[in-house]
This record gives sequence, C-alpha cells and structure tokens, in this order.
Amino acid sequence: MKTIKQFLAEIKRGDFLPLARVLTMVENDLVGSKELLQEIQSNQDVPVIGITGPPGAGKSTLVNAMIEKLVLQGKKIAVLAVDPTSPFNLGSLLGDRIRMSAHFNKPGVFIRSIATRGSVGGLSARIIEMVDVLRAADFDYVIVETVGVGQSEIEIAGLADLTIVVLVPEAGDEIQHIKSGLMEIGNVFVVNKADRDGALSFANNLTKMLHQRKVAVPVFKTVADKNIGVDELLSWIANTRGEDKKRRLFLYTEKAFKLIQQDRMKNVEKADLQIKISEAIDHKEFNLYQFVKQYDKF
Amino acid sequence: MKTIKQFLAEIKRGDFLPLARVLTMVENDLVGSKELLQEIQSNQDVPVIGITGPPGAGKSTLVNAMIEKLVLQGKKIAVLAVDPTSPFNLGSLLGDRIRMSAHFNKPGVFIRSIATRGSVGGLSARIIEMVDVLRAADFDYVIVETVGVGQSEIEIAGLADLTIVVLVPEAGDEIQHIKSGLMEIGNVFVVNKADRDGALSFANNLTKMLHQRKVAVPVFKTVADKNIGVDELLSWIANTRGEDKKRRLFLYTEKAFKLIQQDRMKNVEKADLQIKISEAIDHKEFNLYQFVKQYDKF
Repeated sequence: MKTIKQFLAEIKRGDFLPLARVLTMVENDLVGSKELLQEIQSNQDVPVIGITGPPGAGKSTLVNAMIEKLVLQGKKIAVLAVDPTSPFNLGSLLGDRIRMSAHFNKPGVFIRSIATRGSVGGLSARIIEMVDVLRAADFDYVIVETVGVGQSEIEIAGLADLTIVVLVPEAGDEIQHIKSGLMEIGNVFVVNKADRDGALSFANNLTKMLHQRKVAVPVFKTVADKNIGVDELLSWIANTRGEDKKRRLFLYTEKAFKLIQQDRMKNVEKADLQIKISEAIDHKEFNLYQFVKQYDKF
Repeated sequence: MKTIKQFLAEIKRGDFLPLARVLTMVENDLVGSKELLQEIQSNQDVPVIGITGPPGAGKSTLVNAMIEKLVLQGKKIAVLAVDPTSPFNLGSLLGDRIRMSAHFNKPGVFIRSIATRGSVGGLSARIIEMVDVLRAADFDYVIVETVGVGQSEIEIAGLADLTIVVLVPEAGDEIQHIKSGLMEIGNVFVVNKADRDGALSFANNLTKMLHQRKVAVPVFKTVADKNIGVDELLSWIANTRGEDKKRRLFLYTEKAFKLIQQDRMKNVEKADLQIKISEAIDHKEFNLYQFVKQYDKF
C-alpha cells in the first residue's frame, strides 16, 4: 500500500487516479483520511469559483465552455459538481462516479461529482476538505457547481472565493424568488441563453435590482452553447479577486471549532450516557449536574 | 451571604423568596448557579404537566381553575408560564416578574413567568434546570404553560411527563393547522369553552381524529371560568402517569451531552481561533487539520 507521502506527491504532480482515491477517502471519512488531511498542503492561491443558479439555466454548458477556453490557455481545472440536475452528475445518479463529458479525458481537466447532504441539497459535510485536497493538487482553478435551490447556494457562497449566479431570461417570472436567495450571493451574474427573446430587458432589470447592493455587481450575457460571451466572463474572473481571506477565515474558523469539538467529544457516546443516566434516575433523587460532574470530572 | 446549603434547605422547606432567587440565578446562568445545580436533589416523583394550545384557548383560566381545586386538596403547585400571551406573563411584558393573579398570594402556589428564547417562542435554554429546581422544592405538581405556536409546544412535549392540549370550538376552522403540530403531542385534550355552539361536534371530530393515534387519547370538555369539567380532568391526571422515564432519559441524555460539550469546549474561543487562523493563512500553504492538531494536540 502506498504511503500518504507517495499519494500526496502523485497528486501534487497532477495524477488523477490517486487524486480520485484521496477524494473518495476524504468524502467518506475512511480510515487514514484524517492523517492524510494533516499532511496535504493546500495552496491558498488557487481560487475557488462557485457556480449556481436554477435548474435549466445552463450551468454545466457554461462550465463546459469555460473549461474549453481555459484549457486552451494552458490552465488546469478541477470541477466539483454538486448539482443533482447537472449532466456532470449523471454518474452520481447512476451509482458510480464516472460520467461522460467532452472534457473527461482531456489532460488538465478533472471532474468529480459529489453527493449532496439530504434532500435539501446542502453541500457535503466534507466539501471544505475536498476543496483543500484539490487546492493541494496542481490546478489553476477549482470550480464548484451546485443548483440554486435549497440551501446549497448559501453554502457555496461561503465556500467559494467568487460566486457566479447563472440565470436565463425566463427567470423574469420568478424574479421575486430569485431576489430572496440567489440575488444576495452572486459576485457576478450571467444571463445565459442571451439570444432568447427578452434577454436584454431581463439583463437590464437585473442590473437595476443589483444597484441596490452596496458593491458593484457585473451582469454578463452569454450563449454558452455557442461560446458567446464566455471570454468576457473569464477575463473578468481572471482580473477579480473576491474577499478571499475574510470568507476563508470564517469558513476555516467554523470548521476548526467543529473539528476540535468532535475530537474532544469522541469518547462520549450518547448510548453510554443514556445507560448510565437510566441507572441514576431509578433513584428518587437525581441531579443531572452532579451526574455530569462525576461522568466528566469537571 | 447565604451558603448554597442554606438556600437549598429553605427551598426544600417551601420558602418562595429563596426559590425565586435561585430560579433567577439559574435562568440567567449567574455566578454560583452551576455549583447550586450540582447540589439540588430534584425529586423524580414530582410530575411535570405541560399545558399548551393556541392563543385565546383559555389556558391560563384552566390553570387557575386547576390550581383552585388542587389547593383545596392540600396540594402545592408551581407554575412556569412561558406563554407570552398569558395573563400570568404580564409581568414579563412589563419588565418585572411580579404579576397579579388570584393565587399569587396563596400559600402553596408559586407562579413564575419566564422569558422565551427569541421570537419563535422556544423554551428558555435553562428550562430543564428550572424544572429540576422546582422538583427539589416541596411541590406536588410542576405546571409549565406555553402557547402552542412556534416550537415551544414541541419542546414542552419533550419536557413534560404529561402534555395537555387546550383547544376551543372555534379551532375547527384551523383544524388542518392543529393537525400538524399540536395533535401529535397531547397526552390529553381539553375542549375549553365547551358551552359554546359547536363544542360537541368539535369534540367528536377531535376524538375521531385522535383515533388515528396508536394510544388512546382522552378528550375532556371544560368551561374553565365556570369550573365545569375541571374535576374530571384532574382526576384523570391524578390516575395517569406518562412515559416519564423514557422521556426524561432522552431529555437528560441530550442535556448531559450538551453540558459535557460546553465544559470541554469552554477554553476554545472562536475569536482566538480566528486570530490564529488568520495568521496561518497568510502563508501560501495552509493545512487546517495540522492547525487543529497543533492547536488542540489531538
């Protein structure tokens, strides 16, 4: 069996097979994943780009078009597809993790679908760790794609350095819904399928709405399946840095707190507590605080 | 200053002033409350009766009528009023904790209003402890009254040994709403203001609906302000024990787990974590798990 150091060296070199294995270990919290996570060196300079939006907005098509261009520029890209409606994610639905995609066999493009946490579509509990593993590999961008329903779009905004919200002109009907959730989290908006009727007025309305926010939020128009507008979006991304540090700091602090808590509580089993309390409350007089004091010597 | 032992002896003897002071200490987690909680001996034989229902159902009137009868039987009663719409709770709204009530100066009746946790009306974080303090005093019943909106009615069902849901005939209109929440939690139902039109058919519908539940759930009809039907309810209560142990076991286990967690995490400050992480991620390479390992020596 390979040592952790070998694994990490291979990943650093850009080997996808060990990378996939490490991600599986980390995602499922398998034996050795903690030791592995203690050894990786995640490169904090690699930006994480979140892409979200309602189902059918063409997020995957846009990601495909972006990858195409970036590969031509010699960039290496990792994609985590959390979107259960995404064609990237077909594999996840089929029960295995290998899917077809125009880029799947391209060197320098690594695509991975990951399970969501329950029906509300929250991101996987290990997503921060998975992103850190990808940051430790030799990628220029890590893209996380998730559908903008439920709570995953809020979580992605916490995770990503830059969040792209993809909409389509038809979204005009549901603008009230969009307003409440997605409108708050995008650092940049893309009106995709911009060759459709009403695209221009939709983009204008969107721009007006976004004027209410404190920071300037650009709106790009793309026709992703015809490669229109993608260059402009990419060059904006290349020239923009989000509030990386502030966001990551929050994210890492919350995660660190949870990790410390898990570690300190790892020998406390509720089932065991319950058995002991069950014995104690058989007596007429019971004192929970005394019980806890004796249990935990605090 | 009094010692904890003196306090507890006075409470055990039935003195209300030290009891009120101890409850204030516990509710607000004041200095000394932990030591105090380690010393009280809560009598596990004292039943906790939860009373909940929509605003205007006459919960406080029913509690008043119940108290009246119980006092005549020589019982000592403690009431925790969590219901923000309750007249018992007027004091809480006025900013002090002393309210007028027919029973306020009666010996053997102790009434205390307590603040809810936020606008959703969840029970106070210290409610278990407060109930345990009351169980350590010389009461025959502890009654917890809370309005059945938000989440407090779910919490009360976890806390009380026996939950009484109070409804009025008019509730027929909102039966769908009632179905989802309150219907699940009552061990007994009271149709109050049963002299009103439609009371009988409402009670019958209610009984039919309750037939869907696995256990038999009685429905009583009362006119609390005329003292009608209260005796029957009280004698049912006196002859019924809920699943006290199972429920308390769950409650105490969850609470014990939280107390242990709080204790073990008491020296971990998120602000401190954040400062340290902030320094660490200034370097290009950062490893969260290594950081945590060093921080916590795990």
